[in-house]
Amino acid sequence: MPNLYVALIHYPVVDKNGEIIASAVTNLDLHDISRAAKTYGLKSFYVVTPLEDQRELVARIISHWTNGIGATYNPKRRSALELILVKDSFSEVLDQIAETEKDYPITIATCARKHPSSISYEKFRAMLNNGKPYVLTLGTAWGLAEEFIAKTDHMLEPIAGKTGYNHLSVRSAAAIMLDRLLG
Amino acid sequence: MPNLYVALIHYPVVDKNGEIIASAVTNLDLHDISRAAKTYGLKSFYVVTPLEDQRELVARIISHWTNGIGATYNPKRRSALELILVKDSFSEVLDQIAETEKDYPITIATCARKHPSSISYEKFRAMLNNGKPYVLTLGTAWGLAEEFIAKTDHMLEPIAGKTGYNHLSVRSAAAIMLDRLLG
Repeated sequence: MPNLYVALIHYPVVDKNGEIIASAVTNLDLHDISRAAKTYGLKSFYVVTPLEDQRELVARIISHWTNGIGATYNPKRRSALELILVKDSFSEVLDQIAETEKDYPITIATCARKHPSSISYEKFRAMLNNGKPYVLTLGTAWGLAEEFIAKTDHMLEPIAGKTGYNHLSVRSAAAIMLDRLLG
Repeated sequence: MPNLYVALIHYPVVDKNGEIIASAVTNLDLHDISRAAKTYGLKSFYVVTPLEDQRELVARIISHWTNGIGATYNPKRRSALELILVKDSFSEVLDQIAETEKDYPITIATCARKHPSSISYEKFRAMLNNGKPYVLTLGTAWGLAEEFIAKTDHMLEPIAGKTGYNHLSVRSAAAIMLDRLLG
């Protein structure tokens, strides 16, 4: 199994004008990304937001599917949503992974635009074989803020389709990334 | 560009007990799958439902993003959602593609379970080079009904992850399929 975590970042991300915002949590991000994380054997799926009401919302959704009537209605949903951990900030994510792994994870940023220092899927796939913990970070809204990206260890190349159109949803992008890395 | 269409089927599909139902349209299916279809250069994205109120709902959502305030707020959404065509039945999809292409498309079913006659992604990817029109069909709810699958020309192999867990959302599955076929 890969030693890979995924973190969905709601702050700091940018809006369509490039301003830094804290985005709202989208219910289907939780479902889709946890199901993809479960499919590809990820260790945890971190949902990161500094907004307390949003963290409570996430906790309530998870509880419905893991302890509530959703758990008996659809046990397959439960086993996916159980992977979700909610954190206030990305540094809390790093600390928790470090506690589990006895080592801080290598952090990978993602972006729809090409960066000069991007690493390829092939390279990241090979890196995952070294057993070290990695955390793949996904931006909501219009993507991760540059100040966040600057602190990560690597940037993954963008997903290129056939057309130059690069506006996949974060749910679709996450699914494609995990499939390219671990499928 | 590939000569590929995608169709999201809301009837006949099965519920968790295997009963045939007409499922409800999910707003984010429209957004996510149209954006993936746009990314990978598909010709159209058909949304198929026999329920008139559901077809009206889809038309209203598309209109918001292609003619309404959504179109000026987010033109990238418009160019994706413009790919959507709403149809009453799959036979109407086939007739319309045949009219455009002067040839009926080859139909491909998808399923999370392995079928004895499934074709591989590699094989389907090669088939797409022959220039003929193809339509990839995706089931909502618990998947396409057997009676629908039986009428298609081919079945695509399921997406296998690392774990045996095979419960991706249709949005994630569509993204992965298009990436494997055209990425």
